[in-house]
Amino acid sequence: MPLTGAEVAKHNSRESCWVIVHGKAYDVTEFLPEHPGGPKIILKYAGKDATEEFEPIHPPDTLDKFLDHAKHLGEVDMNTVEKEAKEESAEEKERQERIKRMPILEQCYNLMDFEAVARGVMKKTAWAYYSSGADDEITMRENHSAFHKIWFRPRILVDVEKIDFTTSMLGTKVDIPFYVTATALGKLGHHEGEVVLTRSAKKHNVVQMIPTLASCSFDEIMDAAEGDQVQWMQLYVNKDREITKKIVQHAEKRGCKGLFITVDAPQLGRREKDMRSKFTDTGSNVQAGSQTDNSQGAARAISSFIDPALSWKDILWFQSITKMPIILKGVQRVEDVIRAIESGVQGVVLSNHGGRQLDFARSGIEVLAEVMPVLRERGWEDRIEIYVDGGVRRATDIIKALCLGAKGVGIGRPFLYAMSAYGQPGVDRAIQLLKDEMEMGMRLIGCSSVDQLNPTLVDTRGLSMHTTSVPSDTLGLSIYDPLVSPKEKAKL
Amino acid sequence: MPLTGAEVAKHNSRESCWVIVHGKAYDVTEFLPEHPGGPKIILKYAGKDATEEFEPIHPPDTLDKFLDHAKHLGEVDMNTVEKEAKEESAEEKERQERIKRMPILEQCYNLMDFEAVARGVMKKTAWAYYSSGADDEITMRENHSAFHKIWFRPRILVDVEKIDFTTSMLGTKVDIPFYVTATALGKLGHHEGEVVLTRSAKKHNVVQMIPTLASCSFDEIMDAAEGDQVQWMQLYVNKDREITKKIVQHAEKRGCKGLFITVDAPQLGRREKDMRSKFTDTGSNVQAGSQTDNSQGAARAISSFIDPALSWKDILWFQSITKMPIILKGVQRVEDVIRAIESGVQGVVLSNHGGRQLDFARSGIEVLAEVMPVLRERGWEDRIEIYVDGGVRRATDIIKALCLGAKGVGIGRPFLYAMSAYGQPGVDRAIQLLKDEMEMGMRLIGCSSVDQLNPTLVDTRGLSMHTTSVPSDTLGLSIYDPLVSPKEKAKL
Amino acid sequence: MPLTGAEVAKHNSRESCWVIVHGKAYDVTEFLPEHPGGPKIILKYAGKDATEEFEPIHPPDTLDKFLDHAKHLGEVDMNTVEKEAKEESAEEKERQERIKRMPILEQCYNLMDFEAVARGVMKKTAWAYYSSGADDEITMRENHSAFHKIWFRPRILVDVEKIDFTTSMLGTKVDIPFYVTATALGKLGHHEGEVVLTRSAKKHNVVQMIPTLASCSFDEIMDAAEGDQVQWMQLYVNKDREITKKIVQHAEKRGCKGLFITVDAPQLGRREKDMRSKFTDTGSNVQAGSQTDNSQGAARAISSFIDPALSWKDILWFQSITKMPIILKGVQRVEDVIRAIESGVQGVVLSNHGGRQLDFARSGIEVLAEVMPVLRERGWEDRIEIYVDGGVRRATDIIKALCLGAKGVGIGRPFLYAMSAYGQPGVDRAIQLLKDEMEMGMRLIGCSSVDQLNPTLVDTRGLSMHTTSVPSDTLGLSIYDPLVSPKEKAKL
Amino acid sequence: MPLTGAEVAKHNSRESCWVIVHGKAYDVTEFLPEHPGGPKIILKYAGKDATEEFEPIHPPDTLDKFLDHAKHLGEVDMNTVEKEAKEESAEEKERQERIKRMPILEQCYNLMDFEAVARGVMKKTAWAYYSSGADDEITMRENHSAFHKIWFRPRILVDVEKIDFTTSMLGTKVDIPFYVTATALGKLGHHEGEVVLTRSAKKHNVVQMIPTLASCSFDEIMDAAEGDQVQWMQLYVNKDREITKKIVQHAEKRGCKGLFITVDAPQLGRREKDMRSKFTDTGSNVQAGSQTDNSQGAARAISSFIDPALSWKDILWFQSITKMPIILKGVQRVEDVIRAIESGVQGVVLSNHGGRQLDFARSGIEVLAEVMPVLRERGWEDRIEIYVDGGVRRATDIIKALCLGAKGVGIGRPFLYAMSAYGQPGVDRAIQLLKDEMEMGMRLIGCSSVDQLNPTLVDTRGLSMHTTSVPSDTLGLSIYDPLVSPKEKAKL
Repeated sequence: MPLTGAEVAKHNSRESCWVIVHGKAYDVTEFLPEHPGGPKIILKYAGKDATEEFEPIHPPDTLDKFLDHAKHLGEVDMNTVEKEAKEESAEEKERQERIKRMPILEQCYNLMDFEAVARGVMKKTAWAYYSSGADDEITMRENHSAFHKIWFRPRILVDVEKIDFTTSMLGTKVDIPFYVTATALGKLGHHEGEVVLTRSAKKHNVVQMIPTLASCSFDEIMDAAEGDQVQWMQLYVNKDREITKKIVQHAEKRGCKGLFITVDAPQLGRREKDMRSKFTDTGSNVQAGSQTDNSQGAARAISSFIDPALSWKDILWFQSITKMPIILKGVQRVEDVIRAIESGVQGVVLSNHGGRQLDFARSGIEVLAEVMPVLRERGWEDRIEIYVDGGVRRATDIIKALCLGAKGVGIGRPFLYAMSAYGQPGVDRAIQLLKDEMEMGMRLIGCSSVDQLNPTLVDTRGLSMHTTSVPSDTLGLSIYDPLVSPKEKAKL
Repeated sequence: MPLTGAEVAKHNSRESCWVIVHGKAYDVTEFLPEHPGGPKIILKYAGKDATEEFEPIHPPDTLDKFLDHAKHLGEVDMNTVEKEAKEESAEEKERQERIKRMPILEQCYNLMDFEAVARGVMKKTAWAYYSSGADDEITMRENHSAFHKIWFRPRILVDVEKIDFTTSMLGTKVDIPFYVTATALGKLGHHEGEVVLTRSAKKHNVVQMIPTLASCSFDEIMDAAEGDQVQWMQLYVNKDREITKKIVQHAEKRGCKGLFITVDAPQLGRREKDMRSKFTDTGSNVQAGSQTDNSQGAARAISSFIDPALSWKDILWFQSITKMPIILKGVQRVEDVIRAIESGVQGVVLSNHGGRQLDFARSGIEVLAEVMPVLRERGWEDRIEIYVDGGVRRATDIIKALCLGAKGVGIGRPFLYAMSAYGQPGVDRAIQLLKDEMEMGMRLIGCSSVDQLNPTLVDTRGLSMHTTSVPSDTLGLSIYDPLVSPKEKAKL
Repeated sequence: MPLTGAEVAKHNSRESCWVIVHGKAYDVTEFLPEHPGGPKIILKYAGKDATEEFEPIHPPDTLDKFLDHAKHLGEVDMNTVEKEAKEESAEEKERQERIKRMPILEQCYNLMDFEAVARGVMKKTAWAYYSSGADDEITMRENHSAFHKIWFRPRILVDVEKIDFTTSMLGTKVDIPFYVTATALGKLGHHEGEVVLTRSAKKHNVVQMIPTLASCSFDEIMDAAEGDQVQWMQLYVNKDREITKKIVQHAEKRGCKGLFITVDAPQLGRREKDMRSKFTDTGSNVQAGSQTDNSQGAARAISSFIDPALSWKDILWFQSITKMPIILKGVQRVEDVIRAIESGVQGVVLSNHGGRQLDFARSGIEVLAEVMPVLRERGWEDRIEIYVDGGVRRATDIIKALCLGAKGVGIGRPFLYAMSAYGQPGVDRAIQLLKDEMEMGMRLIGCSSVDQLNPTLVDTRGLSMHTTSVPSDTLGLSIYDPLVSPKEKAKL
Repeated sequence: MPLTGAEVAKHNSRESCWVIVHGKAYDVTEFLPEHPGGPKIILKYAGKDATEEFEPIHPPDTLDKFLDHAKHLGEVDMNTVEKEAKEESAEEKERQERIKRMPILEQCYNLMDFEAVARGVMKKTAWAYYSSGADDEITMRENHSAFHKIWFRPRILVDVEKIDFTTSMLGTKVDIPFYVTATALGKLGHHEGEVVLTRSAKKHNVVQMIPTLASCSFDEIMDAAEGDQVQWMQLYVNKDREITKKIVQHAEKRGCKGLFITVDAPQLGRREKDMRSKFTDTGSNVQAGSQTDNSQGAARAISSFIDPALSWKDILWFQSITKMPIILKGVQRVEDVIRAIESGVQGVVLSNHGGRQLDFARSGIEVLAEVMPVLRERGWEDRIEIYVDGGVRRATDIIKALCLGAKGVGIGRPFLYAMSAYGQPGVDRAIQLLKDEMEMGMRLIGCSSVDQLNPTLVDTRGLSMHTTSVPSDTLGLSIYDPLVSPKEKAKL
């Protein structure tokens, strides 16, 4: 006989804390102190239905995996659970209003447009999680900005009637030189989560990299693949290597074609925009003083298992437990690319984790411009596949990366935004727009296939100049009258 | 007996689609799928008078050339055609109001001023077509901005009482070292179209380059020339070389003195501002998904004939079919200038198509600064005439180009804006302002004739530095109190 | 018997045009076409009293000098002249209101502050004349901005108790290393004109340079000097060398100690802000077409006599007619400084005429940084006195110029603004502020006298980099949410 | 018998001026002309209670030290002193309102956040004193901005599980490589003054540097230390060396572990923002003319004793009177670091006094990048401890300084702001945030202890480029239509 809402409701305290998720009750009293997101957020739902909050940030197998089965209390008769009269906040009402008037999909002409729409229609906390970066978000913005420092030197009078921008990545033939990179918590943006991206990737024949911190479970995402669709796996390495081993070997068995080990995140970043979005103005603890708050946003809550001790020697171990190609994701300087090659891995992703980890880390594209000349000097440029992610928004960005020597680029946030705003049609259109731009860009730079892209087609002299202007002359500027255009006649 | 409006009105569907243009009816049912601008825009006028929409973007001989004569249905009694009660949009009303109060011509003191006025008084879609650029419009803006990175090193104490800034271009003596470059769809801005520019060019003794995509027909523009007025022809090369040959030989026969082959446009650019301006909020096709829209603005609609396979070997062919000097328009790096010289053409225009093709292409003036030292090293600087276009707004810009080695510059948009706002008097004043500025500039730099202009008169060290500032410190800037000037006494 | 207002009033047309100035009538009918400012402005006062308009822009001896004495019609009984009921414009009323509430003098803490006050209380046209620059006013703004690119490398632990920043210029001992440079039309800002500056210069023991285009006559300004006060003369060279000779020799006889020949103004600049300020919205002449307007602001109206043929050979001639030291004002590159030294002149002013002549001319301070290393290499650094003007607003600017090798700097506009806002007390305070800043600056850079200032005390690496950022990523920036500071609690 | 308020109130003029401070009366008539802050500010309180104004800017022993004891008039019966009905200004009311709604401490996520809060809740004059800088405040802003020009080259795959960022400074082991640097007038921000910082420094095991110009007395601050807490002393050298000697030897006797001699302030800076904040709109003295005002803000009022004659030879003398390590605070170029080493001092602080002295002095971090390569070339890098202060706001800033070779950094203003807004809990949280950031930063750069930090981990190529953009193209920019995101559907 199922439990009733009333029974569950009694266990609404730190001393005895039950919660309902997807129609089942769980006793999480003992789990409270271990919860990576802190006990506070669970206690908010003590004795209540927590499904809506739980759903987007926990894969479906979470409770099975992490909560002792003795604490699984079984079915609840949901008809007996009191519906909370949720009062819609003014903010939420405005959002609902914006959703009603959101632009139609055809009005999105480029990848930035999806972001503009998503910002208006996503929940504030979801937007904050996706869009935030580390510290002052300087690196996050630099990532796209860096592409603006690379200019083209196009060739003319080349027959570009037929353009072929297919390429291969880790042995897989793809339609366009990018892959959908791993991003966490897809259900914050769309109720179906990462499988939406799986379907679009299939449709456009590009590779999807499956995130460790997905909202869907790994198997759900693999299951969503069709035919010979290729997927890769992104891995945060668990402190418990046995768990890691199990995950990796399971992925290999399921057919994953690449293991991308994240090496730029021994600890997940503090993202203040995300933290600030979580803040609710209840109670004051000025007294608390030096204790910093534990509720540091979604990212850190879900990442406590990551091993900060991961080091080069672990790479040998990985090579011993899997035959999948191993790629280091998050390499940030030429010395480490050389070491990666010497370690025998198959690839590196030059990346700063979308600007979400170390602020003032350089953009992947800048690191690429540092790396390739050194490799070419050694004749090593073909010993490894080099990818770049971060800030890619236009096909011209992809072309720039390939001119400089990348095999392909990873794109993450733009597809999350397209999915959050329009679901799969959004992602499909985003990819199609990239393909259209790619065809145009290849033609205009004078290359009919990706192997023709080379460093003489770009001018990167301004790329590595990290400088700012002398601080502005505020007095001087305020007394200068800017020039004006002709004035209209006065209104009568 | 002429057709009646009622008869035409019956054919208002995809199955049978008649339209009226200039008082004659045409059956375009079968033509619908072939229309470069897509069928949708025609269907909007099915059974109706389409003259107003048709006029500015089709030369008058279009229907004769492209629609089977069997489909020409003959005269319509226009008295029987129902006038559509066009409801003026709020936007249009505001525009009409702005036209009433537009500044008088004498208030325009420089070329930017015409643009400011034109923006207010032009139709939104026409403004969008003229003013838009590729992708993020970075290159479009860079074009003028690049001139701001070139500074003068003027000579003093040179007798500059008499200033002579005449020069010759492809053998033609001109009053000032610029030509009116080819720009499409002149009737969007002025009902007479490109012939307005022809008349101004004559008046001020400068050369006009006739655009392939003019609103007037080629012959109309040639006919508008007077006396020994010199005109050049800009050419988009048609996939059908027979058509191309006919066009070129006709131009030569009509007396054209230069053939400018566009080499930077194997495909016409996507200009999102233009596309966005066309968007009308009718119906939603979120379902349509991955299909990108066909109505991609005026540019692409009118350019589907352009041959993306055009290559160096075609240059030989052109040399075989015409005696006109051949100039490659849209060269973008020194390697291709060298090849152009080796190919025996008479000139190149260093140009990125006004920033309308490949975003992040460098400005013509920057390419010039790359090209000339290489040519001088080879002693090749006189083997070809080098022109630059893009971003020229001031006579000082012209002087900078000549100092760096250009024979002259092309100016396009500013004259379109002057024409759109004020008709021929606008264009005349624009040119006169350039002449006044030119005289002043020559004097102040200390040169009395254009052959004295040389590279020591300019400082170009900052020219090729394509960089951006470190992304702004948004938190830091927001907490800084800018300095303020003395405060007025309080009002009593 | 004096004329009556009624008699004068009859002559109110182009056919017969009389005007009253300072209580006397003049027949200017024949002079109309010769008037450097164009006939229109005179005709506005035909038959009327023109004193108020005439006064600030014509030295008092103008009519004597330029109008045939037969046209001097004699006294007018001013009681019979109808007072024009001048309707105060809304703009003027606001200005009067601002004057009432203007900050007191002690609120001005630096030279920019006077400019801020002056902008509010000056007449619009006067402000426009003083504050405007050539074309886009880029050079005008660069002049101050250039100093911001020079940074200090101060010495520490130097005894700076006693600071001596006196120096000598062309043999004259001065209290601080600047002079009041020549600026035109002082009465636009203050009814007494340039003599106000003369008095302040005396009080603070600095040299004043007397402008050719002063509102006061040359002799009035000389007469205002006291004791052994030293003055220099700025000279626009007249086409008629006899006039020039007379002026120069008169100046020498009156005791002028330096002849500053302006070499950067063969033609006076177009200053669009000034021109635009003159525009009045009366009548439309769209028809006029290609004719550019003659009313091009005050500057050009008063300068038609300047000889654009002035050249190096004239310098010899000047040396033959005067014993005054000759200084070339407006030198703009090292080649011409070398030639100046070879010509045997005593000094040069590296200047671009306050940004009022050639836009994109480099700042004087940048040219100084180009010049001195070349001179030092030749051992020529002491063969000439080098001055710099343009953009000096802080004592640190003066110190920077001296560190780089200048003998002193010229300061112009700031004193005009101080005078326009507060009269002589304003100018006095402005100079005193500079002296206070100078003492502080010398101490903090670790030098107790000006001869200790040297190039190792400044870092000029960024000085000559004329570049702009890549055009802004407008889409990208608009979708970025800037970081925000902590939010206040909601208001209850 | 105590004095009555009425008796004191009679002495309310320049002729006889008594004031009450902390319940005691003082006759300051003869002291008026000597008061460093000028007589005006005292006269405002003649015959009245001046405690509130006196308190924050005078250490408690001031009257004992500087006013002849004969002028100490003894106790006042404060019940007889008339309370001034202080009318709260509108400004003050708004401030009180802001205090009520101030964000709670947990909303501060970084050091800038405290500044944002403090700006809202501090008194205007206190804020102006803390936040102001020299002249145009360019150097003040550059200090933080300079860190933004340094980018990371992080290492990956290093075991960073255990992070140790303790270090030692002048022999003292500290928990994190910064010290609380000396800042003046702590009671302007918090009624307890500098001892608040002492307590926080103890709690987090960092060193506090005691300022000469503290609001608390030196002994009060020493007394507030607990256990083996280490403090240093900042010294402005008095003209009277006997006083200086007494101060230094007293500090040594009290256990101070470092003597930081300020060498960048022979005269305290003019800070116009501070001066402007003091201005009150009473009376006009336009007549006063050239006299600059004496009330130049708090800084200069309290600093007239500082000896501008301090020079290298004094360093020898200091070495003879104390055994404390001597550190020169305010060194600004490599030549002087070398001389400091040769002089045998133990350390230098590369500093520009928080941008409060010489505007356009370079940032300490930039000077560090100039200094270290020269020292390393000589093998001198370990002969001295090098500190940097100015603009440190993030742990990444600290890491950058250490990578470049600094032993540690000084942080000043941020703790003042934290203290002003939230008292000691604010300072505690500020330090805790830095520790959290430090742990994260060390992990992400791939170093587990501070000795691993080295120059290859940073890219400083943009650091020393002091440049500004070409002045903006105001006309051009104003006529450019920025790109826009998709438009929402119209509201119905």
